[in-house]
Amino acid sequence: MYNIKIMIEPRTLKGFRDFLPLEARKRQYVMQALRKVFESYGFEPLETPALELEDILSGKYGEEGDKLMYRFTDNGDRRVAMRYDQTVPLARVAAQYQNDLPSPFKRYQIQNVWRAENTQKGRYREFLQCDIDTLGTNSNLADAEILATVAQAYTTLGFTNFKILCNDRKLFQELETRAIITIDKLKKIGEEAVIAELEKIGVSKDTFNAIKNAPIPEDLEDIFNSATRFGVSPEVLVFDPTLARGLDYYTGLIFEVVVDAYPVGSLCGGGRYDELVGMFTKNNIPAIGCAFGFDRTIEAMDALNLFPSSLTTTQVLVTIFEPALTDASFAAANILRTANINTEIYLDTNAKMDKQLKYANKKNIPYAVIIGPDENNSGQVTVKDLVRGEQKSVLLSELPHVIT
Amino acid sequence: MYNIKIMIEPRTLKGFRDFLPLEARKRQYVMQALRKVFESYGFEPLETPALELEDILSGKYGEEGDKLMYRFTDNGDRRVAMRYDQTVPLARVAAQYQNDLPSPFKRYQIQNVWRAENTQKGRYREFLQCDIDTLGTNSNLADAEILATVAQAYTTLGFTNFKILCNDRKLFQELETRAIITIDKLKKIGEEAVIAELEKIGVSKDTFNAIKNAPIPEDLEDIFNSATRFGVSPEVLVFDPTLARGLDYYTGLIFEVVVDAYPVGSLCGGGRYDELVGMFTKNNIPAIGCAFGFDRTIEAMDALNLFPSSLTTTQVLVTIFEPALTDASFAAANILRTANINTEIYLDTNAKMDKQLKYANKKNIPYAVIIGPDENNSGQVTVKDLVRGEQKSVLLSELPHVIT
Repeated sequence: MYNIKIMIEPRTLKGFRDFLPLEARKRQYVMQALRKVFESYGFEPLETPALELEDILSGKYGEEGDKLMYRFTDNGDRRVAMRYDQTVPLARVAAQYQNDLPSPFKRYQIQNVWRAENTQKGRYREFLQCDIDTLGTNSNLADAEILATVAQAYTTLGFTNFKILCNDRKLFQELETRAIITIDKLKKIGEEAVIAELEKIGVSKDTFNAIKNAPIPEDLEDIFNSATRFGVSPEVLVFDPTLARGLDYYTGLIFEVVVDAYPVGSLCGGGRYDELVGMFTKNNIPAIGCAFGFDRTIEAMDALNLFPSSLTTTQVLVTIFEPALTDASFAAANILRTANINTEIYLDTNAKMDKQLKYANKKNIPYAVIIGPDENNSGQVTVKDLVRGEQKSVLLSELPHVIT
Repeated sequence: MYNIKIMIEPRTLKGFRDFLPLEARKRQYVMQALRKVFESYGFEPLETPALELEDILSGKYGEEGDKLMYRFTDNGDRRVAMRYDQTVPLARVAAQYQNDLPSPFKRYQIQNVWRAENTQKGRYREFLQCDIDTLGTNSNLADAEILATVAQAYTTLGFTNFKILCNDRKLFQELETRAIITIDKLKKIGEEAVIAELEKIGVSKDTFNAIKNAPIPEDLEDIFNSATRFGVSPEVLVFDPTLARGLDYYTGLIFEVVVDAYPVGSLCGGGRYDELVGMFTKNNIPAIGCAFGFDRTIEAMDALNLFPSSLTTTQVLVTIFEPALTDASFAAANILRTANINTEIYLDTNAKMDKQLKYANKKNIPYAVIIGPDENNSGQVTVKDLVRGEQKSVLLSELPHVIT
């Protein structure tokens, strides 16, 4: 028999990404930081399936959503659809388990969604969504808490000089959706173009100016006050009467996070949507929440150098000088690992030192430990700082203390 | 216009699960513990897409795999398939980025996979896989490191008296696959039935007995020795010459984790598979790895009471006694949160105390803080321990110290 290997070219689908360790670590760093902030305010984790029955999702995201949704017939002849966002599944959960869930129900959810977007716009077809929402209360404290959580999240990630632009969707209640969508374009196309577009659909310049110069609505002022009681710096909260947000389900507070030093749209956005979550029940369920733009937040952190320079999995590579000294290397590795320092021992007892150090560099491991015969005889180890290119000898027992 | 609401029954697909906060927290607890152990040995995170081009996955999992795989035609008329395991995507990654990856490449991967299993067997169609693998070395140290990581993982999760049953697949190299599958059933159907089945396919009782009484192979002994150098207790490692593992791609060490106190099959299993990962390249890539049975590990931890009793997101609910005392409650909540204690403030300033405490109970929040007029005047707060049903008054500044 011939050993025929049919070689298939290794490749990924357009719009889908592999995350190799360096990128995957960044994602985990952000996820973990966000999770910690969410939990500090009492938001609890929720997971829903990647596949839902099609009738649960279809018709919920407008014409575009129905077009971009991944849908198919499964082996059991059921029409199914892949998760398109996390809000409709949340609405389903809120209805399906209404007796089991606390009220208000504060949940966070960090899962992938799939949309067959046009990838030429630099969009992805699989991307992580990261949502927090509070269901079941229309208290302004809930709105303030969402703002506080968002502010704390961006502070924790290292952003400074970010702003949360806020508005009250009720300011627009006389306007129809297409006028709101036009106003939403203000920052992109400028005031003149917006006014021209508005006039074409019968909305006067005076109406636009009245919106632009509107005083802060009472509800929003109350939400701002409560947010500062939650600890938000007042200068973070900015009333922006022309902030519109395109989606038509908002009913009250709307907001977006912008960063002066990275002015490419918003990093996070949300608002109150009191009539959406009740879609699967007879009861109305008031709701406030937001979605963190995960990819864009990572892009901004990259651009602003907000990731720690030591964002590595392994802190130390313990090399093996020669097979006879393997035990000395194990002793060092075990001491380090016991001190909660992520430590690898090189997995080949016969490799040249040069090859071992190259491996450390490829993995961005900042320290290497070398134990040759001299070190071994004197109970010492040599620690190489691979970033600074320095090295020193220390007693084996002191080893964990020189790794920072 | 009538407000017609077409009510769709909220429900999930057969074999798919929602994880409400209590279950989601358990999953996160296990995931985080495993991740920490994996990283302590230098395994790095990898993520691959949920969808792959069909030709990447099809034909890789035998006839059953092709039948159970979720496959469909996407909007761009491409045949695509949902992730079925994490090994084939790993093989693709190893080939696609071979120049960018360190060698050996040690990665962990914790993502969902989808299989249209018969759900009557209590199987799920979406479940989390949790894999560690080392590619690119056939050093016994790599095998030993996988065993050490597995042992540390189960120790960290609180398991005692677990064993890692080990064997060397080379013991079976004279046997054909169906004989190996028969021997694999030994613990389920007993020795007599296995011998009868083997005889039917031309394998003698003597052959079986020779396997059963085989001395530990030299390679396995060396791996055991190295594992103890990694810190594994020798009594954890058990040579089991009849351990077979059904899959036919193993080429060396095979192993399974069993727990005496929860004898329902294995919680984790793996082995060396030196000829599988090279499927997308001209080079052979030796590999050793394993998959943690995530659901079964959680079931075992539930049964053995290994989850911490305080597995809750929120530690403290700060109640609001009356609207005029809201600021006092905010002060307490902010002090607690600053001390890294997950804290909620009740989101309605007018709710009865009873309702607020019921909310705490529903969320399993262990402590409630109450600040009435008396407390407020004396700079004190009342802390209710909702588990023990006790309460005491402390100075506001002392509050973080009485929450354990």
